Amino acid sequence: LLESKERLQQLALVPPVTPDGMMLELAANISTLKELDAVLRSGAHGIGLFRTEFLYMDRGRFPTEQEQYEVYREAAERLQGKPLIIRTLDIGGDKHLDYQEMPEEENPFLGFRAIRFSLSRKDLFKVQLRAILRASAHGNVQIMYPLIASVEEVREANGVLAEAKRELAAEGVPYREDVPTGIMIEVPAAVAIAELLAEEVSFFSIGTNDLIQFTLAVDRMNEQISHMYEPFHPAVLRMLRAVVEAASSRGVRVGVCGELAGDVRAIPIWLGLGIQELSLSSQAILPVKEAVLRTFAQESRGLMEELFSLRIASAIRERLERFHSEAVLAEDIARP
Amino acid sequence: LLESKERLQQLALVPPVTPDGMMLELAANISTLKELDAVLRSGAHGIGLFRTEFLYMDRGRFPTEQEQYEVYREAAERLQGKPLIIRTLDIGGDKHLDYQEMPEEENPFLGFRAIRFSLSRKDLFKVQLRAILRASAHGNVQIMYPLIASVEEVREANGVLAEAKRELAAEGVPYREDVPTGIMIEVPAAVAIAELLAEEVSFFSIGTNDLIQFTLAVDRMNEQISHMYEPFHPAVLRMLRAVVEAASSRGVRVGVCGELAGDVRAIPIWLGLGIQELSLSSQAILPVKEAVLRTFAQESRGLMEELFSLRIASAIRERLERFHSEAVLAEDIARP
Ligand SMILES: [Mg+2]
Ligand SMILES: [Mg+2]
Repeated sequence: LLESKERLQQLALVPPVTPDGMMLELAANISTLKELDAVLRSGAHGIGLFRTEFLYMDRGRFPTEQEQYEVYREAAERLQGKPLIIRTLDIGGDKHLDYQEMPEEENPFLGFRAIRFSLSRKDLFKVQLRAILRASAHGNVQIMYPLIASVEEVREANGVLAEAKRELAAEGVPYREDVPTGIMIEVPAAVAIAELLAEEVSFFSIGTNDLIQFTLAVDRMNEQISHMYEPFHPAVLRMLRAVVEAASSRGVRVGVCGELAGDVRAIPIWLGLGIQELSLSSQAILPVKEAVLRTFAQESRGLMEELFSLRIASAIRERLERFHSEAVLAEDIARP
Repeated sequence: LLESKERLQQLALVPPVTPDGMMLELAANISTLKELDAVLRSGAHGIGLFRTEFLYMDRGRFPTEQEQYEVYREAAERLQGKPLIIRTLDIGGDKHLDYQEMPEEENPFLGFRAIRFSLSRKDLFKVQLRAILRASAHGNVQIMYPLIASVEEVREANGVLAEAKRELAAEGVPYREDVPTGIMIEVPAAVAIAELLAEEVSFFSIGTNDLIQFTLAVDRMNEQISHMYEPFHPAVLRMLRAVVEAASSRGVRVGVCGELAGDVRAIPIWLGLGIQELSLSSQAILPVKEAVLRTFAQESRGLMEELFSLRIASAIRERLERFHSEAVLAEDIARP
C-alpha cells in the first residue's frame, strides 16, 4: 500500500495525458484553505470548485467582504497563477445557515437554493462578488454560478457582477476586468438549452450529483430508492454528450465536478466525449491521473459508440468495468 | 356567457381538425366515473388519462381486483369503443393512502412514487393489472405506466403484465391479448432515452406537470419559487421536440396530458411539433377544440421555428400570446 502511495506521488509532476496524447486537466474541489496543501502536493491543475458555503456556515453571521476577500486572495496567491474557480454561495437544499431563516420546503432539492437565493438577496450576492473581484487582482480567479436553469439567471447574475465592477472601479480598487464567468450544468433545463447558455459564459462545469438526481427524479439520500441513482444510466451519457456538443462548437470549455469525476471507471467517458477538465477531491487526483496515463483516447471514443448502443445502466456499467480492467488494471498485472 | 357556452356545445360533434386539415385528438382526464357524463357530452375522443389513485384513496384498504374491474369495465363500456387509457397507481409525492405507510421523505417528488411503488409491491400491482386486463374484454382499454425513468422499469412492469395474462388465460378469464401499453414521459431521463423507450411501448403521454418540475428543478407548489415554474421555458420546448422526434420515426403515438394541454396558448406548439393527442379536463375540451378549428398547422410550424430562436421564456410566452390573439381571438372580433 505504501509502495503504491509512493508510486502515485511520483505522478504529481507528470502531465495528465493519455498514451495517444490527449490532455485531461485534473483540478481539485476544496471547501477550506486547509485543503490547499494536499491539493498542491497532488500536482492539481488548480481548483475547479471552491465551495464557498463553508465560509458562510463557519460563523454566526454572513461573512464580510473583507473576510471573504482574504480567503479568496490567499487561495489565489498560493495557486500561483493556476486557475481558482470560485463557486458563489450554494445554500438551500440540504445546506442551511443558522442565522438565515429559510422557508420550510416540501421538496428542498427543487426549492429555494443556490443562485435562486443569491438573486433574491442581491445585497449579499454583491458582497461576495466584490470579494471575488478583489481577489482576481492576485491570481487566476474565475467565477461560477450554481444551479443555473435559464439564460435570464446568468444575465441577472452578470448584471450584479457588472455593478460590483463599476463600484470597485469608482473606488479605485483593483480587480481583473475580464474575469471569466461560468456556470454549473446541473439542472436538466441547462442541458436542454446548453447551446443558448454557451453564448453567455466562458465555461461549463457539469455537476453530476444534482444533474443525475434531477434527470432520474431520484433523491440519492433517500434509502428507499437510492439504488436508482445510477450515474451510468443511458440518459446521463446522452446528457453529457449534448452538453459537450453544444459547448464545443462555441469554444466553451467543459469540465465535470461531482462524485462521478472521481470514479476511474468513468474516465473513458470523459476522453471519449472530449471533456477537458475534471474537478475532484484531492485524494482522487493521483489515482485518476494514473488511469488517464493508461487509457487511449482513441479506444475511449470507440467505447463510447458501443455504450450509446446499450439500453440499460447495468450493461453500460459492466462494459466500463471490463474496459477499466483491460485498459488500466491489466498493466498492474503485467508489472513485474 | 350562456351564448358562448351554447356555441361551444355545438362543437361537440365537430372533429378537432385545423382549417388546413390536421387532426388533434382531444381526450379527457378523469378520476372517477362520475365525470364520464361530462366527458361524453364534450364529444371527447376518449379518456386519455384515468387517474386510478382515487379508487385507492376512497376506502380504508386496497381495492380488490373485482372492485377495480367493475369500475374499469363500466368506463370501458360507456365509452363504446373510444380509447380508455388507464394509468396504473400513481401515489407517493404529494398523494398518500391512509392505510399504506410510506417512508418519511426529504424530497417526496424525487422519491418513492408511482411505478416505483408498484414495482416494489408486485402483488398489488398484479391485482390492478388483472382488473385492467379483465376490463379490456369490454372496450378499447389501454395501460399506462407513470414516472418511467428507464427501459428496465418498462420491461419489469410488462413482465408483471405478462404474468397476469398467463394467470387469466389459465383461469379461462377473457381479456385482450394485445392490450396496448404506454408510458408517461415526465422524468427528464425518459426524454433523453425516448428513442430507446419507443422500442418498448405503443404510446407516450407527456406529463407536463412533473416534467417541467424536474426539468427546471422547481417544485411548483413552493411559493418562494413557483414563479420559476415556466411551461414556456425554451428547455421545455426542446424536450417536447425531442420526444416527438424519437417517437415519430418509430411509429409511437405521442399525446400530452398535464395542465399545459389545456392552455389554449400552447395549441400551436402541439400542431407545430406534430403531437397527435391532448388529454384535458372535460371543461377544457370545447374551448381547446374551438381554438384548434381556427389555427393553421402550417402557420404553427412556422411559429415553432421562430420560438426555437428565442432564448427566454417571457419572449416565447409573449409570442404565443400574440399568435393566439391574431389567429384565434381575431375571429371573435370579426364576428358580427
Ligand atoms: Mg448542486
Ligand atoms: Mg406525475
